[in-house]
This record gives sequence, C-alpha cells and structure tokens, in this order.
Amino acid sequence: MNTFGKILTLTTFGESHGPAMGGVLDGMPAGVAIDLDELQRFVDRRRTGKTVGSSTREEQDRVEVLSGIWQGKTLGTPIGFLVRNTDARSEDYEEIARCYRPNHADFTWQAKYGFRDPRGGGRASARETVARVIAGGIAMQALASLGITIEAHIVSVGPRLGVADMAEVIQDVANDGDTLGGIIECVIKGVPAGLGEPLFGKLHAQLAAAMMSIPSVHGFEYGDGFDMASRRGSEVMDVFVKRDDGTIGTVTNHSGGIQGGISNGEDIVMRIAFKPVPTLMREVPTIDRDGNPMTLNPRGRHDGYVLPRALPIVEAMAALVILDNYLIRKTNVL
Amino acid sequence: MNTFGKILTLTTFGESHGPAMGGVLDGMPAGVAIDLDELQRFVDRRRTGKTVGSSTREEQDRVEVLSGIWQGKTLGTPIGFLVRNTDARSEDYEEIARCYRPNHADFTWQAKYGFRDPRGGGRASARETVARVIAGGIAMQALASLGITIEAHIVSVGPRLGVADMAEVIQDVANDGDTLGGIIECVIKGVPAGLGEPLFGKLHAQLAAAMMSIPSVHGFEYGDGFDMASRRGSEVMDVFVKRDDGTIGTVTNHSGGIQGGISNGEDIVMRIAFKPVPTLMREVPTIDRDGNPMTLNPRGRHDGYVLPRALPIVEAMAALVILDNYLIRKTNVL
Amino acid sequence: MNTFGKILTLTTFGESHGPAMGGVLDGMPAGVAIDLDELQRFVDRRRTGKTVGSSTREEQDRVEVLSGIWQGKTLGTPIGFLVRNTDARSEDYEEIARCYRPNHADFTWQAKYGFRDPRGGGRASARETVARVIAGGIAMQALASLGITIEAHIVSVGPRLGVADMAEVIQDVANDGDTLGGIIECVIKGVPAGLGEPLFGKLHAQLAAAMMSIPSVHGFEYGDGFDMASRRGSEVMDVFVKRDDGTIGTVTNHSGGIQGGISNGEDIVMRIAFKPVPTLMREVPTIDRDGNPMTLNPRGRHDGYVLPRALPIVEAMAALVILDNYLIRKTNVL
Amino acid sequence: MNTFGKILTLTTFGESHGPAMGGVLDGMPAGVAIDLDELQRFVDRRRTGKTVGSSTREEQDRVEVLSGIWQGKTLGTPIGFLVRNTDARSEDYEEIARCYRPNHADFTWQAKYGFRDPRGGGRASARETVARVIAGGIAMQALASLGITIEAHIVSVGPRLGVADMAEVIQDVANDGDTLGGIIECVIKGVPAGLGEPLFGKLHAQLAAAMMSIPSVHGFEYGDGFDMASRRGSEVMDVFVKRDDGTIGTVTNHSGGIQGGISNGEDIVMRIAFKPVPTLMREVPTIDRDGNPMTLNPRGRHDGYVLPRALPIVEAMAALVILDNYLIRKTNVL
Repeated sequence: MNTFGKILTLTTFGESHGPAMGGVLDGMPAGVAIDLDELQRFVDRRRTGKTVGSSTREEQDRVEVLSGIWQGKTLGTPIGFLVRNTDARSEDYEEIARCYRPNHADFTWQAKYGFRDPRGGGRASARETVARVIAGGIAMQALASLGITIEAHIVSVGPRLGVADMAEVIQDVANDGDTLGGIIECVIKGVPAGLGEPLFGKLHAQLAAAMMSIPSVHGFEYGDGFDMASRRGSEVMDVFVKRDDGTIGTVTNHSGGIQGGISNGEDIVMRIAFKPVPTLMREVPTIDRDGNPMTLNPRGRHDGYVLPRALPIVEAMAALVILDNYLIRKTNVL
Repeated sequence: MNTFGKILTLTTFGESHGPAMGGVLDGMPAGVAIDLDELQRFVDRRRTGKTVGSSTREEQDRVEVLSGIWQGKTLGTPIGFLVRNTDARSEDYEEIARCYRPNHADFTWQAKYGFRDPRGGGRASARETVARVIAGGIAMQALASLGITIEAHIVSVGPRLGVADMAEVIQDVANDGDTLGGIIECVIKGVPAGLGEPLFGKLHAQLAAAMMSIPSVHGFEYGDGFDMASRRGSEVMDVFVKRDDGTIGTVTNHSGGIQGGISNGEDIVMRIAFKPVPTLMREVPTIDRDGNPMTLNPRGRHDGYVLPRALPIVEAMAALVILDNYLIRKTNVL
Repeated sequence: MNTFGKILTLTTFGESHGPAMGGVLDGMPAGVAIDLDELQRFVDRRRTGKTVGSSTREEQDRVEVLSGIWQGKTLGTPIGFLVRNTDARSEDYEEIARCYRPNHADFTWQAKYGFRDPRGGGRASARETVARVIAGGIAMQALASLGITIEAHIVSVGPRLGVADMAEVIQDVANDGDTLGGIIECVIKGVPAGLGEPLFGKLHAQLAAAMMSIPSVHGFEYGDGFDMASRRGSEVMDVFVKRDDGTIGTVTNHSGGIQGGISNGEDIVMRIAFKPVPTLMREVPTIDRDGNPMTLNPRGRHDGYVLPRALPIVEAMAALVILDNYLIRKTNVL
Repeated sequence: MNTFGKILTLTTFGESHGPAMGGVLDGMPAGVAIDLDELQRFVDRRRTGKTVGSSTREEQDRVEVLSGIWQGKTLGTPIGFLVRNTDARSEDYEEIARCYRPNHADFTWQAKYGFRDPRGGGRASARETVARVIAGGIAMQALASLGITIEAHIVSVGPRLGVADMAEVIQDVANDGDTLGGIIECVIKGVPAGLGEPLFGKLHAQLAAAMMSIPSVHGFEYGDGFDMASRRGSEVMDVFVKRDDGTIGTVTNHSGGIQGGISNGEDIVMRIAFKPVPTLMREVPTIDRDGNPMTLNPRGRHDGYVLPRALPIVEAMAALVILDNYLIRKTNVL
C-alpha cells in the first residue's frame, strides 16, 4: 500500500540509504503548466526548514522528472520522478540492525516482514516524505491555476501554545538531548462547494488518512475538532447567509469548511498533532533482537525538532487529496 | 465511494426513507462460523442504546442475510444483507426539501449533485450506519475466533470529562432543546504484532479514515494523541521489555499499540470526537434554497444525544479495519 | 473480487438457491432519468430468451430497486437492487454435493475454499448474471441519453457459421442429450473518440476482462481479432479521412473502433466465444469427493443452449465498461 | 490507470524518448531471493529477440533497481526501477507531430488529451513494455521458488501456422516494406488448484486483461478457446481422475487449466493474437492534423516483426497475474 489516491494516484518507493527516493504521480490531467524551478523551491522548503537541533544530514534533493511533463506541460501520462540519496553514511547505523529503538518502527517491521533494512530506518525513515512533497508540489501548481491555495503553519511547539519564544523552548530541550513535537494547522482556501464523496470518501476522512500517514502524526481534527465534543449544538451552529455576490456561505466556520463530508465553499481548516521526535540524543534503554537489555547511544544524525520541515509535507498531502477530489467531482454528473 | 476496505470490502446502500438499508461484505474468508442471533443482538445495540433526548423513531432493524452464509458458516462469497425501513414518515420532512439546515449536509449535497432526497436526510442520514454495524458485527465474530476483541466506551459527554452524572447533563441540555457530542474511546485487544501496511496504509491511518467516515466525527487520535504534541520525547518513550513468556512488549503504551503504522502487540487505543447533534429541538435561523432568511422549526424525530448508539458503530468500523489488515498481512511473506 | 469498475462500480452477491441475487451500482451520476419498466423488460430478455433445450427453471426476476433512484431519477447515491430466488428446488442437487461435475466449478471451489454451496452451483451458477443485467440495464439508459447504443447478436451456433437453421442444429444436439456453445458479436455505436485509459486500462483490455468474466466465455477479440494475426500490415490499415461534416474517421474499421486502447469514434466491434453448456443431459463419468469413479445423471434443470440469454449479459457488461470510461474521461483535463 | 494488480501492483511510467522508462512493483512479499543478473538476462530477451526487419534502435536497457531489494532479497517494500532511454533520435519524428499515422494511437491520444508527445509515439510506444518485463522478471523468480514456471512460444507467424520457414515469410514481407503479426501461446506449469477470484476476478479474465493491455494484441483465448464454440459439450469434457499420487486431475485439458475462473492444477494454456506492426516501411496515405490528405514516409526505426520480442512481455504479464493471485489466495481462509 504505497499508493495513495483514487483518480490522481501517488505511488512512492525508496529506502533512506538506498540509491534513491522517488515515485509516480498518475492521473494528472493533461495540459497543466508545471514550473520545475518552482517545484524545486517547494521541495527545498522540506530540506531547509531547519532550526536548532535539526539533522546535520545534507541531502541536495535535486528533483529529476523522468516522464509525464514535456515542453512545460503535463502530458496526461504518469509523472515519474526521483531524488538521489547522496549523503548516506550507513556505517552509522550498524547498531540499529541488532536492536529495537523505542518509539521507532524497528520492532514492528521485523515482526511483520522478518527482514528489514536498518540503514537509517530504511523505508520507515521520514526521508520517504520527499516523494510526497514532489508529487504534492505538482498538484499544488495545478490547484493554484484553479484559484485554490494551501498554507500550513505551526500553532504550538511542545507545551508552548502559540509559537512565541519557540527558539528558546527548542534550545532548552535540545540541551537536554531531548525532543519535541507540536501541532500544525493547515488552511485550504478557494475550494468550491461539492468536493468529497460520501460515504467512506468524506473529504475529511480522506484528509485524515492523508495526514495520519505522515510519520509521527498521532492526531487529526478539522473545524473545531475535539473542542466541538465539549460544546452544545447551539454553540457551534454555522448559520447560512446569502452573500452580496449571490453565493451562499456561513457566518461562522465551526464545521471547518466541510459538512456531511463535502466541502461547502468556506476555508477548510484542520490541525495535525505530531509526537516528539523518537530519537533522543542521549542514552536510551532498550533491548537487542534477542531480548537482552542494552543501552542505545544514537550516533546517527537526527532531527530533534521537525515541524518546520513538516509544513510542506502537510501541504503536499492536502494538495493531493483536494486535486483528486476535484477530478472525481467531475464524474458526479453525466 | 460507498466501498470501504481492500481485501475485506464493505459496500453499502440506502436512503433513510427509501425501502431498505443494506450492503455487501465481500472478501470474508470461507468457513468462519457466524451466529446470526448474536449478530442481531449486536445490531440491536445501535438501535436501543437510547437515553433521554434520543429519537422516537422506531426501526426494528431485523437483519436479513441474503447470501454468503450457509449452514452457519461463511462461503467465501459476498455476504449481501439488508434491513427494511419500516417507520419512515416522509411527511415530516417536506420543509427540509426547500431549505438548508445548519450543520447538516443539505446544502453541500445540493451543491454537489443538484438533486437530493430530503426525506430524513436521504443518504446523508446517520441511519446508513446500520449497514456498517451489520458488516462489522460479522467481522467481530471472525476476530473473536482469533482472540481479538474490540470494546468502545464513552469517556466524555459534552463538557463533562468522565461520565458521572451523564444523565443530568443530558437532561439539562435537552430541556433547552439543545444537543451534545462527546468523546468515545475504543480499545482493541489481542492484535498480534505486524498488522498495518506502510506507507499510506498505516494501521492508524486506516483507523482514522474509518472513524472519520462516521457521521458527526470531527477528530481522531491514537495512543497519547494530541497530548503527545505537548510532551518531550523522553516522557512518551515506550521502553521495550522481554516478558516472562518470551514475547517482547513495552512497559508503557503512549504509542497506542501502533509503531511506524504497524501493530506492536500492545492494546490498540484510540479516541474519536463527536460534534453535538446538528438538529436542535428549537427554532433555528437558516435560509431557503433561494437564499431568503427563514426560521426552521424541526418537526421530525431526531436524536439529541447519540453517543451510546455510536459505540457499536465505532466497534464495527474498527473490526472491519482489523480483519482486513489481518488478511492483508498474510500476503507479506510468500 | 465481486466488484467491477473504477468510478462506476458494480458489486454483486447471491447464490443460485439462496434467498436472493442482487448488487450495488455505485458511482452513477446524479439526475439521470431511469425508466424502471424499461429496465424490467431488459432483464426479462435474459430470462425469456429461450429456445429448445433451455432450462425449465422459471424465475420471475422482478427487479426490486432499494435505493439510489427517487422520483424517476438517480440520486448519485448507490443503487441497491435484488431479485428473489423463488423457484429453487434444492433437493435436485444433493448428488452434486458429493461429486465433482466435469467442466464445472465444483472441484475448483472446493479446492479454493474447502466449503461450498452445492445447491445449483451456488455462487458459481450463471444465475449470478441477473445482477449484471440489472446494473448494465441502468447504465444503458444513461448511455442512450448520450446517444450511445449497444447491440449484441449471435454470429455462430456450434459448428454453424451464420445462424440459419439454428433451431435444427440445436434440436439435433438436444436429442443427443448434448450441448452447444457459439459466438456472440457486440457492436457499440456512438462512442466519442477519447474513451479508454492507457496503459493497463486500454478500452479493449477492460472489455476483455468484462466479457471473460461471463460464465462459459473462452475467447475474446475486437476488430479483426485473431484473423488480424494472419494478415499483412497493409491489408488491415484503417486509412484516415476527413468527413464532410468536418470530423475525422477511418475508411475501414479493422481496428474495431479502438486504437492504442482509446476509442476513435468508429463502431466498437468485438466477438466473444462461449463454450458448450457443461451440463449434459445424459450419463457422464466423474469422481466423487474421495476420488472414486461414479456416473453422474443430471436431474436438475439446465440450459443446453444459452446464447440468446447471453445477449443482454454481453450488452450489460459492455454498458458498464463504456459508461465507466465515459466518466473517467472527464478527469483527463482539468 | 498505469497501475496493474491488486495486492502485487505494478505502476509504470515513461515516454519513448523521455529520460527513462521505469516503474514501481509494490506488494512483493519480503525475503524473496532475487538474482539481478538473471533479471537482466530476462530483460535482454525483450531487447535482443530480433530477426529480419526488426528495429535498428539500440537500447542498452540496463536495469537500475532503486529500492526494495537489499542484500539479494526483497524487503517487502516497493521495488522502484528504471532503464534510461539512451538512443532516442527525436529529429526522426517531427513529421509525426503534425499528422496521424494509420493504426497508431496518434489520433486517439490527441482526441483524448489535446496534447501529446510525438517523439517515438511517446507513452503509446511499445517501449513501455520494458518496465513490464522488469517487474514480471522479478515475479517470475518468486514463482520459480514455488515451482511455477511460465513459457511462451510462437505458434503462427502471419498466415503461416506452425513456424517452419518463418524466416522466409518474414523476409518476403519485409522486402515489400510490409509487416506481420502472429499468435503466441503461453503455458504456465505448476500452478496449484485454487487461484483466481470469482466473480469478476476470474483467473482467465485477469489474464485476458493483462494480455490485451500489451500493444498490438487483438485477441485472447484460453484452453480450446474460440474452437470450443464450435464443439459439442461431450467433445470438450475434461473427465476427472484420481491420479496414483492421490491428487485429482483431468484426463484432457480443453479447459486450459481453469474452471469456473479458478485454476484446477492442470497446465494453464492461453493464446494471444498480435496484429501486424502498424508502421510500414513504405509510403502510406494519411491526413495531417487539419484533415488534409498527405503521404507518410516513415523515416524512424521500427520493428516489422516483433513476436520474438513479445515473448518475455507475455511471460512477464502472466507472472504478475499468477503471483498476485497466489498472494490473494492466502486470504481465502482465516
């Protein structure tokens, strides 16, 4: 299940320290102008969104498009792409091969497949997200031509609501060799009413699946989300109005732009909770593959705080969902 | 997109006030014993989980199995089933046809399809969940034979954390003609390590999609969920241990039984946030289909508090996801 | 895998002697007028297309639509439907339970599932096709509104090319307690250029899968088909012309209306080969479930010649493929 | 729809004269030994299966595996791969950009997408099959470890049944600047009983879809195929026997190893009809994009007879279908 989407599908491949990460974006409509320089800049946001405590691994992540785009436009054929893994120091990871790191996927992958690539976490590494960002970046350019924009931002870092003094919090934690998570909010503007497919294809269900598939995500909500569960119905009612331009909208947006699983034309608003980075930069107790206790002293290069780098990933996944549903929506009438 | 699942697929149909609700559960393994009386009792939990303020509509919901089960065992063929809609008073709903109820799907369905069945909300009615409960009830019996159990319970009602004095809160709100939501927690025990499919098929991503597709759900989290975003990495580390029986487990379960998207053998724990019931039993301002302001005075029969009825729905969706992944997992090795 | 199609999907259920056959047609666009009387007449063609030697089983096959159509129009929601099995005499089939009939699916289903419903062949009975005809009949009405028509006819019966004296051939064979197959040709008119999806979704590949899924079909070809393999390239070249109305067409149609897997606007022409009915009305040698030789003397009611009844089945499957691709084609451009 | 398969899925990309052809094979079980040298030799069969009249284009087709295989074994992760397009002389194809070649996909792609890559036929080129052969070659190694073998051979060339004097026929036709097709038979040995999924997933329906998706294929049959349509039931009856080793088999194999859509343990036998190569090496009448008559004098490099090169393609597609169904079959019981 390395494929996502229904009409617009993304299939990705690549292990962290293998030759390359890549993917195939299929179902892109033909004739859409794609600016590859703009795409590279979008991908660079994932790479360079760095702060105190982030990984010292340096990947160039030069996007190589192998098919599907010609003379600056999509052909309607699958868009194959890759980035090379250039800075993989596998020697750093030999210890991982013989133990299970806490809160990582080492144990579960071993249990599932009986065989795993321990180099940098293999396929379980967050490095796989580079393929999502490339595909999502292409989708975003298509959406932009339709007047649909997507923007993610950080709303809390660890215990700090709002993000003032973020650097200070991050530095404190890094000094302890500890790590942080946080919450990202994503807002999608310009989505017309009518996107999303009942029953199991509700727009927010698809967005939830998309966001929950990002490494480290532990929670998803849209509109007023969990807070809605503690309100009365009268407190969260989005009253309809006819606007001056003749369109119908709502006065408030507790529903987050989605009602009955279908977009209503208001801004789509969702929040995604990231757990703290699992790899601590200090000694950690664990067990080896035989179950013997041991102490893990991570020697690799790891991010201690990843939220800025996660922003384009969130945007990319949102773009894939919205464009897919934009296409599916065309089939709702004959 | 009225189909859910990959190997084990559920396809449902039915409008609230049409002749019947039903579905097809395909991909069930052959030779699984199914107790239809037990199934009916499970379906009855959805119908009779009633409290103050719940709907006065009375459906018998007698499950009619049309195929796929013979001599008390599954045949490996699709299981077709239905329940009749026997108590649909369409006259109650004529007003709905000419207006858009706030926080309902009237407007978005109209925008999407240009044509909708207003009787009881049509396909957008939560009545569709009866088909999920039937299919999920079948899946639960298969899981039980594997030692896997699923149990959902209410952890908060409206503003009340914990559920002491639940009846009082509900009565207060009902007296105001208002409504409530709440939070349900679901725990799955006995899942072996190895279920869930990277990358986009992470077990929690599938569970999120399943739960977010239930009407009124606005949020999903697993393990420590949103709370995890405010912790340090060292605070939520699930340290591995070798147990006396030789198996490997974790001392704590902040991860909620899933690591890297794959079950690790611990209890799977998730929470689902429901918004308040959208239909208030008092006057509500809205607009008609031409955009003119009007006042809606609901005369139908509606639930003001639905969480007890949602418990088997949550369990059913969880059962479908877990059994599907149990089957997919068989294909991970040759 | 009881589901067919991508956007327009048909999921069917039902064993020959179970309570009912039925299905769910999902993805139908909203607002399409459906005449249920016309649909019933189409379904009756499958039931009453009878000649010498056909089954004496009498099913009424009254179509019951359970959802998705309201006030004579599709709602965009799944169309659930069923027909009851009213004339199932299970006592006729007890012998089948303990043996494997030659050229039937008894042995392979037993090998696959370890458990089977022997009554009338269970799910393997051609009776399942009634669900396809219902769904295809709905699709045909949608296609007709677009000017697309589908018509199947018999081009050979057993050894007889052309179908003059068909009745005589059939009677001769029936007198011997023997059975016949034959070849059906299907022509689709009015399909616009551009339907079909490269690479694996070539229109003829989808049609082949559809037709080969019909019981007893052993071969499929389109355009000049197998005959094309024995020709030179210059003999089968469809030269392009600009017609008086400004459209582009081809002078000949060796390609059968499909080039590169995509419709070119010419008539789509295909042929489907049916093997003889497997159940002979005379003594047949076989083995029982323990491998002991035995003689099978069929006492049930079986068709000895089924091609007339297969015509609406072929048309129905063609309709599902064409309408699905008509919808998918909408997503080829933004 | 550039993805094929259900559990084992192949997604391919690449235009004939773009940077590379490639794909992603997902769902391969973990721990399967893959010999990359053997894989390269299999891919070379497609490249070097050349005879009089075949293309003078020389591609090295060195397979580059980018993920999914480590230390000689599959990881259970997606296998990304590519071959570079090294010998693409785009200048040869400028004429194609402004006209529609008969029996090619130029017109239909233009009609569908409104934009196409004319260089070497773009995505419609048979060059795309290299990705299938790579993926199928991997699947074949897995099947071989299970004792399942696949072998395709040519049974007729143009008008010549059997293939004696093949070279003479081919040379005669090539001297005329003309082209040939033919028929390939494929035999799969060692498939256990029980593969194939009723109803729409019948094994032969999947094989038909696979083979019909290969460029130039116009017909498919299995077992006695079209010939079966002209026989009596008594003539094609495969009588069951219990063999000395205790297994159950059939005395004859008119059914081609598949009954009721499920393998019965006998050899699976199918035949695939290829049309003549569409590009003639002589003047051909056609029209330009404005509908004006013109004469096309192909100056590119094209195969006039491709059947030997098609053999590994047929084997590859068969391998993908069989391995996919081998995996799905595991889910038929709990």
